[in-house]
Amino acid sequence: MILSPLLDKLIESLRCLPGVGPKSAQRMAFHLLQRNRQRGLHLADVLQDAMTQIQHCQQCHNFSEEPICRLCANPKRDHQTLCIVQSPADVLAIEQTASYQGRYFVLRGHLSPLDGIGPEDIGIEQLLAHLESHPCKEAILATSTTVEGEATAHYIAQLLQPLQIKTSRIAHGVPMGGELEYIDGTTLSRALQGREEFS
Amino acid sequence: MILSPLLDKLIESLRCLPGVGPKSAQRMAFHLLQRNRQRGLHLADVLQDAMTQIQHCQQCHNFSEEPICRLCANPKRDHQTLCIVQSPADVLAIEQTASYQGRYFVLRGHLSPLDGIGPEDIGIEQLLAHLESHPCKEAILATSTTVEGEATAHYIAQLLQPLQIKTSRIAHGVPMGGELEYIDGTTLSRALQGREEFS
Repeated sequence: MILSPLLDKLIESLRCLPGVGPKSAQRMAFHLLQRNRQRGLHLADVLQDAMTQIQHCQQCHNFSEEPICRLCANPKRDHQTLCIVQSPADVLAIEQTASYQGRYFVLRGHLSPLDGIGPEDIGIEQLLAHLESHPCKEAILATSTTVEGEATAHYIAQLLQPLQIKTSRIAHGVPMGGELEYIDGTTLSRALQGREEFS
Repeated sequence: MILSPLLDKLIESLRCLPGVGPKSAQRMAFHLLQRNRQRGLHLADVLQDAMTQIQHCQQCHNFSEEPICRLCANPKRDHQTLCIVQSPADVLAIEQTASYQGRYFVLRGHLSPLDGIGPEDIGIEQLLAHLESHPCKEAILATSTTVEGEATAHYIAQLLQPLQIKTSRIAHGVPMGGELEYIDGTTLSRALQGREEFS
């Protein structure tokens, strides 16, 4: 339905955003045109800048517009602990808890041999190089608790063994606020195995 | 949580889109940066063009990047029928049904005296001017079936009475696929009042 070719193009372009189908894209386009042209223009500018200027930190490979990101450049962060995650979104999630003070290393996803994604595709070499140039005492494996995330954690743990780095894995268990009857069996059995003494 | 100022700015800017909260904005930003930079840049370009170039058609006031929109410029459309709607999104909705061949006039919303929105704010003057320069035989009042939409339709119907234009209102009734037990009372009573003889 071509009413205005540019409007159609805008609706189509908005669909590159995740979770945005034809109806939402249409609503977004009309909303911006009718009420928010200034903010629409601002979004266009910021998008342009972000897509061209945001690169990866040379140390941790997180997103950063500077060669070394703010976390790596922060002298207050603990150099002795390295948290290894699958994606920049995971860094943000952990930072938002404000319960971790060490550094990060961001992989490019997880191992997935069936899809042909091997160690070199997710940046394992860079991780080893990083550990050589920035030695640490403990590596926390914070990949997802999916099958692929577990496999990735195991693979890295094996690699780190000869380097004499203490390697830990984030705890598996029942999420806070979770009612036991609704928790799946695998999680529950891991929660029982990983039980801690009451202190 | 400032990890990258530009990333934060991108997440914040994406929130100008309707229905996009902090978590969705974050997901959109990471998705574009990780997988879709080209489409992100394309979106920035199209947004920029659309926000600056899309204006209103001089005749029907629908969105258009040309002075006269494609619908008004199309000689195949029926000049004798004018459908009056509240917003450009309504034109799109009606066009998508492919069941209307006339022209449109797009108001700027509906009357709302409590919010100080009177006839001059929604473009009633322009509607009358349009009817003078482009006379028609029938005006279909297709404003929403909300209280304000109904009031707007009544107001316009009164204005059009002296002009000897046949004025109709879109039908009120049970939507297709609607189960009667779940339809509200007002709709049901309008559907009974507006019953049609079986042909």
